[in-house]
Amino acid sequence: MSWVERELREQPTALARFLDRERDDVRARAPALVERDVRYLLIASRGSSGNAARYAQYLFGAFNQLPVAFSTPSLYTLYDAPPKLDGALAIAISQSGESPDVVSVLAEATRQGRPTVAITNECESPLTRHADWVLPLHAGHERAVAATKTYLNSIAAVALLSAALAGDDTRIAAIDAMPDAVEAQVERSLAASPTLDRYAGADGGVVVARGLNLATAFEIALKIRELSGIPFEPFSSADLLHGPIAALLPGRPVLVVAPSGPTVASIRESLGKLRERGASIVAISDDERVLRAADVALPLARTVPEWLSPLLTVIPGQAAALRLATLRGGDLDRPAGLTKVTLTR
Amino acid sequence: MSWVERELREQPTALARFLDRERDDVRARAPALVERDVRYLLIASRGSSGNAARYAQYLFGAFNQLPVAFSTPSLYTLYDAPPKLDGALAIAISQSGESPDVVSVLAEATRQGRPTVAITNECESPLTRHADWVLPLHAGHERAVAATKTYLNSIAAVALLSAALAGDDTRIAAIDAMPDAVEAQVERSLAASPTLDRYAGADGGVVVARGLNLATAFEIALKIRELSGIPFEPFSSADLLHGPIAALLPGRPVLVVAPSGPTVASIRESLGKLRERGASIVAISDDERVLRAADVALPLARTVPEWLSPLLTVIPGQAAALRLATLRGGDLDRPAGLTKVTLTR
Repeated sequence: MSWVERELREQPTALARFLDRERDDVRARAPALVERDVRYLLIASRGSSGNAARYAQYLFGAFNQLPVAFSTPSLYTLYDAPPKLDGALAIAISQSGESPDVVSVLAEATRQGRPTVAITNECESPLTRHADWVLPLHAGHERAVAATKTYLNSIAAVALLSAALAGDDTRIAAIDAMPDAVEAQVERSLAASPTLDRYAGADGGVVVARGLNLATAFEIALKIRELSGIPFEPFSSADLLHGPIAALLPGRPVLVVAPSGPTVASIRESLGKLRERGASIVAISDDERVLRAADVALPLARTVPEWLSPLLTVIPGQAAALRLATLRGGDLDRPAGLTKVTLTR
Repeated sequence: MSWVERELREQPTALARFLDRERDDVRARAPALVERDVRYLLIASRGSSGNAARYAQYLFGAFNQLPVAFSTPSLYTLYDAPPKLDGALAIAISQSGESPDVVSVLAEATRQGRPTVAITNECESPLTRHADWVLPLHAGHERAVAATKTYLNSIAAVALLSAALAGDDTRIAAIDAMPDAVEAQVERSLAASPTLDRYAGADGGVVVARGLNLATAFEIALKIRELSGIPFEPFSSADLLHGPIAALLPGRPVLVVAPSGPTVASIRESLGKLRERGASIVAISDDERVLRAADVALPLARTVPEWLSPLLTVIPGQAAALRLATLRGGDLDRPAGLTKVTLTR
């Protein structure tokens, strides 16, 4: 079995471990983070961690009323012109903790006296030297280039931080129920992935979502692209009528991420336009109408609160990426010569 | 002649008109914008205007020390959970001023008592009812679906606002010199575009940049995709070693946007990796070493300060999109059934 499949299957255990070890500490420490005149969050990240940051953007906005800005690392490195960070709580998300440009953002925030948090899987990394608080992911060593369990634990860390900042024990309890749901989802998704075999020869595809699951769309597209080499692209369904729709060629798969909740009606409406373009629709959903309207239905194993749905919806996408990559051959653990850690300045 | 070509050619005139009509007003009014405890900018936009917002993110960061957050319109519409905007200056960029979700962000900022600016080509639009200050683009009516002159004037408006906020008359004078440079660039780029004919059959491509010209990479990729239907994708050269590099198939064109300045060395270094992947390199640059290393050189007509280079670098991309679309046939002014204004909530 490839490392990526092993790590995909480890996700329920890795998630439970993270929650067991960090829940109480996060609940106790989070409220103090926003005491120092915090008006917004500044998040530094790249790759899959950048997709976790997209989840944070919607979650902290909706549940903590905090706007989220993404850092522009080159301002800190190439341009040597960092912005003034008054009002910012700086958060870095990096599984390796090694990306120099992500490190430089946290270092600058520290220099300016702003509170800093590092969410990372490596507690002894350059990043952690610049953080007031290191929130470890406890995902265990991840060997495959394609992140699975570190992504899942990163979004769980974001969810826990958001609930703890708000002092909301009901939401923390809902997170505690997720390892079981993730376990059911992993089994279901691995079992369902052969229904995607018809797309093994596809030369492109699209993943569509909105709101909190835009992160999922980006992460699934990245996963399919990394593992299988098929150029999948993520889009907000709200942008479909701008230029991006030109990518929807007849017969190409469109993965639609549509868990029940505030965005499902908006996404359901866009199904008609996707059909008109001749797209082949793959639905990741627990909404019966969406699933019935799809060419391939990838049902969610459980219905969970929409804000937690990204912990489930990414899994059918991971399983799809694994399946398509297996059918197309290649090295699953080190696809296309990619490296796990990038050392960009 | 198609409308899009006519409008591409109109850009020097449209830019000069915008500067003539707005320069003095912007210089006088901008400083007051940040008087009300502004810690960061919140920008709402979609499509090409969203690419202008990317330019703003780097420009205001580097020259005004102001971090920039992009709004998440669905929080204001679908989720009905807008963030608290304390410390924000809210800016909407929308050529039509009609996108309901962009309007909703400005309306909410007004409701929360925050300063608001609308940068738009339509002074009588829903957007302008929610703005303290309407900054008109004066681009003239744009008939083609693919934005050209409204994009150029949008980034000019961002440049002018940044210089005026800083009270920097030297930078304002540099902007005033741009219509001539844009005119030279339009001529040069239209003349050079037949060198791209070898890519008319391409089934994909990539546009790479970093920093201020990341906006350009996004806009060129969108333009080529909209007009020609060829799926081009934008990437930061810093992300090339993450999953996206899988899109670099041998023989596919990679447009490299590399004006001289703080990012050119970083991009020059990535040329080797692009070569290893067998990419065919098209360079938009005024750097001799970058141009010599390319398979197709698209030289810039002038060397301008790097912060203003996006007003030139986009033009070879617009001309490339026009050329590729012409060679592949189709309706240049209404490609692939796209509509100019999207009315997403």
